[in-house]
Amino acid sequence: MENFRFYVPTDIRFGKDQLDALHDSVAQFGNNVLFIYGGGSIKKSGLYDQVLAQLAGLNVTELSGVEPNPRIESVREAVKLSHENNIDVILAVGGGSVIDAAKVAAAGAKYEGDAWDLVKDASKVGEALPLVDILTLSATGTEMNRNAVITNFDTNEKLGTTGWNLIPAVSFLNPENTFTVSKWQTAAGSADIMSHLFEQYFDRAEGTDIQDFVAEGILKTVIKNAPIAMQDPTNYDARANLMWASSLALNGLTGKGKKNGWTVHPIEHELSAYYDITHGAGLAALTPRWMEFALDATTVDKFAQYGENVWGIKNDDKMKTAKEAILATHDFFASLDIPMTLQGLGIEEDTKFAEMAAEAVRIDALDKNAYAKMTPADVEALYRATSEEFSIDL
Amino acid sequence: MENFRFYVPTDIRFGKDQLDALHDSVAQFGNNVLFIYGGGSIKKSGLYDQVLAQLAGLNVTELSGVEPNPRIESVREAVKLSHENNIDVILAVGGGSVIDAAKVAAAGAKYEGDAWDLVKDASKVGEALPLVDILTLSATGTEMNRNAVITNFDTNEKLGTTGWNLIPAVSFLNPENTFTVSKWQTAAGSADIMSHLFEQYFDRAEGTDIQDFVAEGILKTVIKNAPIAMQDPTNYDARANLMWASSLALNGLTGKGKKNGWTVHPIEHELSAYYDITHGAGLAALTPRWMEFALDATTVDKFAQYGENVWGIKNDDKMKTAKEAILATHDFFASLDIPMTLQGLGIEEDTKFAEMAAEAVRIDALDKNAYAKMTPADVEALYRATSEEFSIDL
Repeated sequence: MENFRFYVPTDIRFGKDQLDALHDSVAQFGNNVLFIYGGGSIKKSGLYDQVLAQLAGLNVTELSGVEPNPRIESVREAVKLSHENNIDVILAVGGGSVIDAAKVAAAGAKYEGDAWDLVKDASKVGEALPLVDILTLSATGTEMNRNAVITNFDTNEKLGTTGWNLIPAVSFLNPENTFTVSKWQTAAGSADIMSHLFEQYFDRAEGTDIQDFVAEGILKTVIKNAPIAMQDPTNYDARANLMWASSLALNGLTGKGKKNGWTVHPIEHELSAYYDITHGAGLAALTPRWMEFALDATTVDKFAQYGENVWGIKNDDKMKTAKEAILATHDFFASLDIPMTLQGLGIEEDTKFAEMAAEAVRIDALDKNAYAKMTPADVEALYRATSEEFSIDL
Repeated sequence: MENFRFYVPTDIRFGKDQLDALHDSVAQFGNNVLFIYGGGSIKKSGLYDQVLAQLAGLNVTELSGVEPNPRIESVREAVKLSHENNIDVILAVGGGSVIDAAKVAAAGAKYEGDAWDLVKDASKVGEALPLVDILTLSATGTEMNRNAVITNFDTNEKLGTTGWNLIPAVSFLNPENTFTVSKWQTAAGSADIMSHLFEQYFDRAEGTDIQDFVAEGILKTVIKNAPIAMQDPTNYDARANLMWASSLALNGLTGKGKKNGWTVHPIEHELSAYYDITHGAGLAALTPRWMEFALDATTVDKFAQYGENVWGIKNDDKMKTAKEAILATHDFFASLDIPMTLQGLGIEEDTKFAEMAAEAVRIDALDKNAYAKMTPADVEALYRATSEEFSIDL
């Protein structure tokens, strides 16, 4: 097991009827509040009105319209509003995109230069405004970690940044706020959660039973509950399990103590940055092909462990178990109605694959740090493989 | 799933060579440090000298000799020293006993009356001195939660208390500091960790897949690594897995969202309070008998789930799986050389069982809140069953 620091001071308020604590959670940091949200869904659901009622007596500046794959322009706008209104605290209400934009804005408000600097270079992230959030989509885990992902469509860059001060101070997690999440977003969010777990689970660190067995437990949670939530969108317990899984999948619980050479996320980020597709769906399509690429004599034990402990597959032949587990992964995502090819996701052309592959390898050093090292040619081949129907020889 | 608040702001420094951060971790709270530890083992291991070197330049008051099943007298002494020396911060170096005594002392130093009040009535726990700790025994989980257990041998009471301000600010978790832990303490500590998980796992809350699957993962971690650590005491990864399991088993991860009607702990606390036995060993001996008591038509599904997911037992008959799981639990503890009867633990008499049973039921309302409700007669029968060799009809 690798050394680690685990410091996750977010105050999680989980469940129904927690919002009475919102006023004090925000007001403890001051009276000038920047209230950031996305589209109109929180107005339709009534959450918007509940939030404003809680913020009565405070000076509220609103910024709406933060988009999926949140853009640096939204962050810059939030920074500008923070300066103009002498903002003390940011309240973000929405999914990972809204919260990520709010995080970088919180740091941007305390930074002299352009907020995009903070995305390009996490070492520039210093002080930040305090952040409170109300989560409405179970997916990225941003509600309980210090990470944010921002897109710059001018440069076709989708990059992650991080900082100790970016972690939310208080996160309100009410599963009821996800009852109206569509089947498509429920499926994509569940794939995102699972992908976070895969990135940490398939890792070269040794002696990490607790991280691995816990990750297997969270994977099983998603595999059991995502189909229930899709069939029965107001099933509280299914939504609750997905929501808490979202937070626990990427708060360090399964990653601290590991080496953390992530692969599928950087490869997907190129797809989102060039084609603005739904992140979780891109991850789902790429994952089984990546697993096939990564499976070899040095990794078969781990893939077989995954098959046995997560999918209950038992064979005398570990390679067979591993391959059946990869097929089970593919078929699970397909059962959530995620199109499992790039064409299905609306990406018809392939002329940019070489450029995207080179970027992915460069940004996250996939040729050096990945669980299964990848050259640009390997990544380009992965994009091409994801353009074909999936098959695996059992 | 039940509503919950999850707020665990302890800064965990896990691994080798983390102690360079000790000075700043302590000094951030002030210059006057109360350094609390147990017996001489930290002097033998060299940890004592390392700590003093780190505390150079600070005003250090020492309190040694905190005992297992820590006594209120030690807490009172620590409170007295805190007042006399105008203490700013407490540094506890040891196992759960030392840290628990330090926690109640930290609150006692800010409380007008006798520290025992804070144990009898958790609602009186208010402000507390900040606490930093270095853990040397993987067992209680106190290093990452707000709980403490203190014994008063004048009144034969062993009681738990809790408070939001009792959570350690910084915990240093170096698995190497547990290399010298004896086989006996390794076994008892592992049983304690498993018992925490059982208390939270066997619960009447519904829809708690994530808590349950995660608990199963931590149980598997202990079952795999405890025997390794006993055979090979300096096996770093085995010690690391047990240490992180200790923290994660009782920091809310598997209990938040549950109803939390604990049973075996209060029943064991009576044994410790009257006979001063090793807490974890008492838990181990009681647990399989309690499981047999709790197993019925309303709980068989959960016990079968436990058998399947933790022990890999598969039968068409769930009751058979459940019983085999209980036997596996007994045999596992026995394989760690824990005496599995009260006689083996040195308790020969039985004249106090009725009184102890009445106390256990009263203190934790076992007749109302437990997973399987227990009357005083049930608890007394459990003590008597634990006086016989274990057997179960499969």
